[in-house]
Amino acid sequence: MWDSNVNVIVSLPDWIDKVVDWNGVYATDEAKMRVAIDLAAANVRRKTGGPFGAAIFEARTHRLVSVGVNSVVRLNNSVAHAEMMAIMRAEQRVGSYSLHGADRDHVLATSCDPCAMCLGAVLWSGVRRMVSGAGRDDALAIQFDEGPVFPESYAYLESRGIEIFRGVLREEAAAVLDLYRQLGGPIYNA
Amino acid sequence: MWDSNVNVIVSLPDWIDKVVDWNGVYATDEAKMRVAIDLAAANVRRKTGGPFGAAIFEARTHRLVSVGVNSVVRLNNSVAHAEMMAIMRAEQRVGSYSLHGADRDHVLATSCDPCAMCLGAVLWSGVRRMVSGAGRDDALAIQFDEGPVFPESYAYLESRGIEIFRGVLREEAAAVLDLYRQLGGPIYNA
Repeated sequence: MWDSNVNVIVSLPDWIDKVVDWNGVYATDEAKMRVAIDLAAANVRRKTGGPFGAAIFEARTHRLVSVGVNSVVRLNNSVAHAEMMAIMRAEQRVGSYSLHGADRDHVLATSCDPCAMCLGAVLWSGVRRMVSGAGRDDALAIQFDEGPVFPESYAYLESRGIEIFRGVLREEAAAVLDLYRQLGGPIYNA
Repeated sequence: MWDSNVNVIVSLPDWIDKVVDWNGVYATDEAKMRVAIDLAAANVRRKTGGPFGAAIFEARTHRLVSVGVNSVVRLNNSVAHAEMMAIMRAEQRVGSYSLHGADRDHVLATSCDPCAMCLGAVLWSGVRRMVSGAGRDDALAIQFDEGPVFPESYAYLESRGIEIFRGVLREEAAAVLDLYRQLGGPIYNA
């Protein structure tokens, strides 16, 4: 019989600490984005998932709080997008379901514009600034759909006080998507 | 120092097996919805989370595969909406990141229209039919926002072959939201 108490575990691949400098200070949007892009590229080269990486930083100190890489296939979990993993792990680290609060605001950097699920998750996470690299068209070029995201979706988040900056290091971010295609990585939601 | 390898665990509250009949056959949309509503109501009465429940069933056999209840506050995890938990746990149970496939399609029942994050997650999960109970307005009446969901969002899922039936047992489902308000449950994303 199925044991209803078996838990879902959201784990990172084992190479993360080889790629990420947890002691770094990532002062600019570009520096934050490079962490996300490096994670995406490593995820592709090490064949642990789709070509997407994300990282969350303290807004005030520019310190890295959490990271995520696409882990859908590795974990058999369609929710395990890079942004979702970074959000869940950041909240576990700060011990709160919200990353918003006095003197502890957070910034999310993601190597590609978030899909509909992740954009919703950004809203609920309480992050106050989101930067993304590659765009919808870059992802679609390798057949990754982002789902029901509309211009109004971004406007909705902005109306809730979230700053959004897209296209940061876009060419570098898009190059990771192209690398994934070249290496023949699976498009699991085609 | 922060241990980057600490994993996020998505666990259900300990009373689930007291409320759920795992051996039932839930042949109709209403029968499936009642499971979701009963979970939502139990989550409110036992004070383990917000007034939302969800369940996933095999389409062919009408057997229950997984359940979820809102666990945002309990788990310090803004992703831990009822639908997300049910989806992640169903995928773990079937051992795949997709609930779609020959002779193993699935149906999701959720006690309230999904938020933007959960609607995106429904798309990626591969479920082929979604039924919901209470509506956006019922949730808004107790100050739970659903985020950037538009008529085009539902149309998008339907264009991908997902059947959507809303308002199933709506009054019973909405009554759980009202119970939550009466008991003074926290509105964590206000």
